Formats: sequence, C-alpha cells, structure tokens
Amino acid sequence: MQSWVDGQPASALASLKDRGLAYGDGLFETIAVKAGQPLLLDLHLQRLAHGCSRLAMVADHTLIRSELLAYAQAMGEGVLKLILTRGDSLRGYSFTAEAQPRRILQASPAAAYPQAYGAHGVQLFDCATRLAEQPLLAGLKHLNRLEQVIARSEWQDPAYAEGLMRDTSGRVIEGVFSNLFLVRDGGLITADLQRCGVAGVMRAALLTHAGQLGIPCQITDISLAQLRQADEVFLCNSVYGIWPVRAFADLSWPVGPLTRKLQGIARTLLDV
Amino acid sequence: MQSWVDGQPASALASLKDRGLAYGDGLFETIAVKAGQPLLLDLHLQRLAHGCSRLAMVADHTLIRSELLAYAQAMGEGVLKLILTRGDSLRGYSFTAEAQPRRILQASPAAAYPQAYGAHGVQLFDCATRLAEQPLLAGLKHLNRLEQVIARSEWQDPAYAEGLMRDTSGRVIEGVFSNLFLVRDGGLITADLQRCGVAGVMRAALLTHAGQLGIPCQITDISLAQLRQADEVFLCNSVYGIWPVRAFADLSWPVGPLTRKLQGIARTLLDV
Repeated sequence: MQSWVDGQPASALASLKDRGLAYGDGLFETIAVKAGQPLLLDLHLQRLAHGCSRLAMVADHTLIRSELLAYAQAMGEGVLKLILTRGDSLRGYSFTAEAQPRRILQASPAAAYPQAYGAHGVQLFDCATRLAEQPLLAGLKHLNRLEQVIARSEWQDPAYAEGLMRDTSGRVIEGVFSNLFLVRDGGLITADLQRCGVAGVMRAALLTHAGQLGIPCQITDISLAQLRQADEVFLCNSVYGIWPVRAFADLSWPVGPLTRKLQGIARTLLDV
Repeated sequence: MQSWVDGQPASALASLKDRGLAYGDGLFETIAVKAGQPLLLDLHLQRLAHGCSRLAMVADHTLIRSELLAYAQAMGEGVLKLILTRGDSLRGYSFTAEAQPRRILQASPAAAYPQAYGAHGVQLFDCATRLAEQPLLAGLKHLNRLEQVIARSEWQDPAYAEGLMRDTSGRVIEGVFSNLFLVRDGGLITADLQRCGVAGVMRAALLTHAGQLGIPCQITDISLAQLRQADEVFLCNSVYGIWPVRAFADLSWPVGPLTRKLQGIARTLLDV
C-alpha cells in the first residue's frame, strides 16, 4: 500500500529540508494492524504525545489519530509505521514554535517471525554496543537510532532472534527492538528507562495488566547478577507480543508459567 | 540552486524508506563554497571516509568527490551540505553490506553571521543539555543530532552567538555547531573527542597549522576550572572560521594574540 505524507498518498518525502532526515529530529511508532484496526492505539498515541511534549513538537494529535485509523482501515493487516518529524528546517539546529510537524505513514506486511520464537523461546545475542546515558532522550521512540543500527549489525547468525543491550554503566536495559522483563519470586522486574532505552507500548500494557492481576512489578536498575538469578526472562514489543528468552551467554532459563500467562494477555492485546 | 540526489537534480527524497530518515543512519558535511570551489575539501572527505568506515557504510568516495566539485562549480558561492545516508531500509534496524548509500547535495546562501562575531568576539550561552558519552559515535558528524537540536532550543536571545556544551560528566566539550579551543601559556588546548563531540574540519586544520608553527597543542579532557584559567578562548568551524569568545557565565576573556593569529590562518583557509 502506498505511503501517506501529511494525509496525501506519496512515494517520496516532500522536502529534502526535512529535519527528520537532517537531524533525526522526530519520533516514530510501529503499530500492528489487524482487521483494519491499529492495535494498542491509545498507548501508541500517549507515547507519541509524551515524546512531542519532551521534544517541544506541537502536533495535531486528533488529526494524527484520525489519519492512523483511516490508514489502518485501508491497510487491513500488517505493520503501520508513523514517522512524525519536526518538518522543514531553517538554517541550522534552531527551530521555531511554528514548525509544522510532518506525518509519514507507511505500511508493511505483518512481521514474519518464526512461530517457534513465541512457542519455544529465543536465544539472545550479547551486544557489545552500549546505550549511552542521555536522560533528555531516554524512553522516547525518537529517530536517533544509530546505537540500535550498530548493535543489530553485531550479529548475522539467525540463531539469535534478538540482542541484549546494556548501558555504558553495565546495567541491563533492553533488546535492540524489544523491552526485557525478568520474573523473580512470582514478580516482574523491568529496567528503569530514565537514562536510556525506549519505553515500549507492550511493556506499558503488560505492567498495567500485571498490576491489575496483583502481580508485583518493579521498575528498577537491573544488574547482570540479577539477570543471572531470574526465574524466567522474556522480551516484548507491540508487534510480536512476547518471546520467552531461553538462553543468553552462559545462562539459560525455562519458559515459565508467568511468561506463558502474560503471553496469553499479549496475544489478546494483539487481536481484535 | 536545486538539490541533487544521487547525482540527479531532485526536490524530494527519492524514497520514504531511506534510513537517514528512519534512523538518522548516515553522515553529513557542511562545506563552504567560494568561486565554485568547495573549501577544505580533503579534510571534509577524510572525515566522511572515516565516518563511513566507523559505521560500515561502503561509499564510492571518488564519485562523491567529483559530485561535490561539480555541484560547487554550479553553486558558485554559499554553503554546500552533503548528506550521505545508508540508503533504503530493509525491515528493521539490520542492513546488508550491499546497501547503496544515498548522496544528497543541497545549496544554501553563504552564512549571514554578524561581522562583529569575528571582529569583537561572542558571548557563549551555558547549555544545560549535556552530551551523552558514546565512544562508538564520538567524533562523527552523523545524522543523530537531537542533542544539538535540544541544546540550540535553550536560548533565543541573539546576544548569544553559540552555546557551550559539556558532557554528562561535566567536561567542557564544544559549541552546539563549533569546536572550542583554549589558549593557555601560548599553547592550544581542545577537547578530546573520544566519548562525544564532533571532530570538526576547521579544528583539524588549525591543529595541523598550529603544529607546523611550533605552537604546542594539547588534546585532552577540559574542566570548567581549566576554562576559567584560559588566557584566550575561541570557537571555530569550517563555515565561519574563528570567533573569539569574550564571555561565558561569569567569565570573560580578551581577544588575544594567538586567537588573532589563527583567525588569519582560518581566513586564508576559507578563501580561494
């Protein structure tokens, strides 16, 4: 399906002066679409609005919502990517409050991950690339993603479905395109994303649902030692749901009961 | 003058799948052009080649050089911006070695900075935005520039020509779009850019010329205390040359003799 730029079918970026291209000055969302519905839409829009607020981008969120709904309807099924840039650049890094954000919608087919990743779990590559600590950008799904590009280039072996990223201080943070959860003594632990990392929409949804089920949830700094002591480990994102983690470096875990329970919830969230 | 994309006149980015837009996955150079000549071209191309090597981008540097020369010839005078992206994206962060980098050339008029900046010096804003420490990206003029966008948005007062950026550990690094030099006891000091910062082309040229003149040059970590003790302070980049720094926070400096001497060299480098 053809992309849309600012609500109009387009195959090219209207302007070479776009700040998304020049500086990575913008945000994005990757949204699963089923039966014409964008899934977890409210959470995606909440994160986008939060990102706009943090980056001082003034966007028309009502318009964005209606475009996402219309585009998903036209797509039917697949993955919808929204890129929201700060629009065209003046000379240099400065921008004016009047800068009009540019909305780019792109469709791609539903992700074709092996079914085994969810069913039997995955092996994690140990990325040498560390996430830099930048509180001003932490948590946002912004367009400055060279760290992820470099980390993802560290392995080609398809035996690894994902890679584990630590920050420059050695804390365990997330996957390259997923968030990470540990299960310990029946409770969930996931990394504090105040210094780096992307605050995933599925992570947010799982924390909410786990809380409602009375499952203790801790958002905190995670050391390798804590990872070693975990009873279960899993990855999540808003496209594939949950993948149990079976192995990382010399560590291995079973696919445990809490992972399976949450996997059921994720499956429901990614269905219509 | 119209932009070029991959050697062809174009007003739009050929593809919305470009990784420069999606991830800031690419590099750029901003080159002063006079009398149809791109200035400091060898240093710009050296930095670009180094960046390509660090980011595993395989580009045709002979072609890039010839395009820059032809475009500058057509421009006559102004500022030439080259954006080199990793080209179109596959799904996700991974890329193949065959990814064809995309070359985007843009022209803008010569920078219209007040003549007083060079003649009498400038005042530096004290940016609260800190540069994150990421050795994998340090020194490169890559497209992940949200830190500079945020830093530049901290001040609107035209009394400040530039802003001073420190890293998250408090080291004095650079300006938002300039490198910084201190003069102390007749020698030059500039920040070590192993953890963050952009290794500017004018910085490199000045270090070479100063070395040839027997001026001691130190590339090292710089503390605020060292800045306080500097005899002279100046900024540089490859578009405006050198601006003496007269004031920062409660500090002030005269426009000193070594600054003036190097300013003469920079002026020569930016002339044809």
